[in-house]
Amino acid sequence: MAMKKKPVTGMKDILPGEMVLRDYLIAIIKDTYRRFGFTPMETPCVEHIENLTSKQGGDNEKLIFRILKRGEKLRLEDAETEADLTDSGLRYDLTLPLTRYYANNSAVLPQPFKALQIGSVWRADRPQRGRFRQFTQCDIDILGEATNLAEIELILATTTALKTICPENAFTVRVNDRRILKAMAAWAGFPEDAADSVFITLDKMDKIGEEGVRQELMENGFAGEAADRYLGLLAKAGKDASFVRSLKEILGECLEEGTSENLAEIMETVTDCAGGGFGLEFDPTLVRGMGYYTGTIFEVSMEGFGGSVAGGGRYDKMVGKFTGQDTPACGFSIGFERIITILQDQGFQVPGMRTKKAFLFDKKVPAAQLSDILKEATRERESGADVLVARMAKNKKFQRESLAAQGYTEFRDFYAE
Amino acid sequence: MAMKKKPVTGMKDILPGEMVLRDYLIAIIKDTYRRFGFTPMETPCVEHIENLTSKQGGDNEKLIFRILKRGEKLRLEDAETEADLTDSGLRYDLTLPLTRYYANNSAVLPQPFKALQIGSVWRADRPQRGRFRQFTQCDIDILGEATNLAEIELILATTTALKTICPENAFTVRVNDRRILKAMAAWAGFPEDAADSVFITLDKMDKIGEEGVRQELMENGFAGEAADRYLGLLAKAGKDASFVRSLKEILGECLEEGTSENLAEIMETVTDCAGGGFGLEFDPTLVRGMGYYTGTIFEVSMEGFGGSVAGGGRYDKMVGKFTGQDTPACGFSIGFERIITILQDQGFQVPGMRTKKAFLFDKKVPAAQLSDILKEATRERESGADVLVARMAKNKKFQRESLAAQGYTEFRDFYAE
Repeated sequence: MAMKKKPVTGMKDILPGEMVLRDYLIAIIKDTYRRFGFTPMETPCVEHIENLTSKQGGDNEKLIFRILKRGEKLRLEDAETEADLTDSGLRYDLTLPLTRYYANNSAVLPQPFKALQIGSVWRADRPQRGRFRQFTQCDIDILGEATNLAEIELILATTTALKTICPENAFTVRVNDRRILKAMAAWAGFPEDAADSVFITLDKMDKIGEEGVRQELMENGFAGEAADRYLGLLAKAGKDASFVRSLKEILGECLEEGTSENLAEIMETVTDCAGGGFGLEFDPTLVRGMGYYTGTIFEVSMEGFGGSVAGGGRYDKMVGKFTGQDTPACGFSIGFERIITILQDQGFQVPGMRTKKAFLFDKKVPAAQLSDILKEATRERESGADVLVARMAKNKKFQRESLAAQGYTEFRDFYAE
Repeated sequence: MAMKKKPVTGMKDILPGEMVLRDYLIAIIKDTYRRFGFTPMETPCVEHIENLTSKQGGDNEKLIFRILKRGEKLRLEDAETEADLTDSGLRYDLTLPLTRYYANNSAVLPQPFKALQIGSVWRADRPQRGRFRQFTQCDIDILGEATNLAEIELILATTTALKTICPENAFTVRVNDRRILKAMAAWAGFPEDAADSVFITLDKMDKIGEEGVRQELMENGFAGEAADRYLGLLAKAGKDASFVRSLKEILGECLEEGTSENLAEIMETVTDCAGGGFGLEFDPTLVRGMGYYTGTIFEVSMEGFGGSVAGGGRYDKMVGKFTGQDTPACGFSIGFERIITILQDQGFQVPGMRTKKAFLFDKKVPAAQLSDILKEATRERESGADVLVARMAKNKKFQRESLAAQGYTEFRDFYAE
């Protein structure tokens, strides 16, 4: 078989320029999160196929890279379905492996556990511009914290990181609660078991508009009266904490007790603590795709860019799938690849950390003199510079330009003495 | 299917304590290598199955985690062998993907290209203590540099990193050259096509000793005369550069011209530049397993620890498998997992970078006061501390002890005002 030069379909080679940006971003994010008391941890990239296909991952479960069984366990002649051939797969997110990790190690983990994970995930999505089948996720999660301290700290930490990364870009955190979503649908008169279908339509609000939502609800067989009542409520919804508080009266018995106060308190505390720098709004049309969310949900949108740059929420029922006992859990994920794209499009330059010097020597320089040049390079490195030692190219001008493009600002030429 | 709490066989969850050590090591290694002008880059973890099974990987090719084809490409009913089912697999090292990357991107890469890669690799090895099926490799490679400047810089950079990581551990770099190995075998009278078999036996010298090597050579049908001549040469071999220089006379026409001078020069320059801090020895029994090496090979052993902590060599023929045109290449890989084990066994403590403070508040603290506590935490974070804000546990003594074990040294208690 011939060797293939290109990466596998949908994955990419990361070139040095992008890699410097990625390393820089990861360093900022890790540093910020560690200041908030989050602890780095890691799970294997390979996960049990039983866990990956346990209906926690929604549509992502259709996109799994499955790994073939090995040795005696692989019985090709008896295999009837894909399931007979695989025992594991590449993780499609960091949340499912985190809950397995917590279930497996909770006895030795801090309580509550504030986890910081940065790692690759894989999804066999249809290849398209700017979307890759291997990409990096950056998550923080708090497990074992039932109160809204979890949400408050997640939002403060994530917005602090975003402000440091993109100081020029205005952004807004939009918040909602799955229980408010359900209560609004119930209050409007939608049948309880239709809530998910209503939310799928609602989620399209920013694409198809109010009229589009109404039309799709009708097409899906819901009563016009319910649609009208629902859209009427959305139309008069405020964006601030005081409106969220008032939902208690508006939705009455449809809303679980304490829900509106809880979300309002999150908004008030975050606003008070963050001291500005970003917007914070209640968004009754915010749905978030994953079915595992049970309470607060949040998403960050950045001015001038479609889609979200971060998102998360509370998922109190997931650890229980492993342990039989529910554990409160809440997480926030930064869209790492999206941020990279935004910074690249803006022509962002990573601030130089050290002076980059190039020592260029003529090919006639003998070994003993090269030794002296290398020693001089060591001294410069010890005093804090990056030093490249390289042979002078025939085209010296081109070589210098190429090195300048890589960030080298000081040059020294050495000839045979 | 039931959810599984343990990681998949042979892989591990990395707990917070180990993760702090890993992050610390990676930071030192990256920083050191960047000072030497190495550039971070990354390849996808998934590689074409054609490349992974191209006979570059030796025994590692038997240990590949293969990935199932997807969608229409998977034709289970027609599949007769494993090969029909898979189109890709997880990389078993970083060198093969690096050469593919270089072949694919050389037009836009610096020349020579000094690559720095840190990443996970996977091998379906039999599970055993301290060896895992997913592990981290830390490689530097120089592509496009034909002279021994490549070897000299790789050895200087790797030993600088090792001295920084393990300042207490004496270590020795052992060097050899594949061409010297071959010349010695030819000089002793072994047939040319038997060289690989002789090297496999020679590689066991540290385990079975000189007598064991002689016996195995005889068992494999080689002439006693050749074995005696070979072992006689090994017995009188010196460890320094001047002996390496003398190999030119000893081996005469069996040795490719310039080989002994080249290796002696590497040893002399490294010794001169490094200014001590580690041993550097010629080791005529050093073989290195991978078949792709074409010239210099090196390995680092650390006092008190079996096996090597780093290894590498020159592989001038590998890029050519992709491009049809050979490119000089040389690399050095630090045994990251081994270093982690050594440091853990020594009870190494990662030096604290910032003060870790815990703000503990009573459950009766109202939301407005919590807001003030969080603001105080922000101020402390901005002045350079890591601050954890947490609810006071019922057992305050246990909570403090547990936080102290996580590195928290300052505590503040907050009660409702």
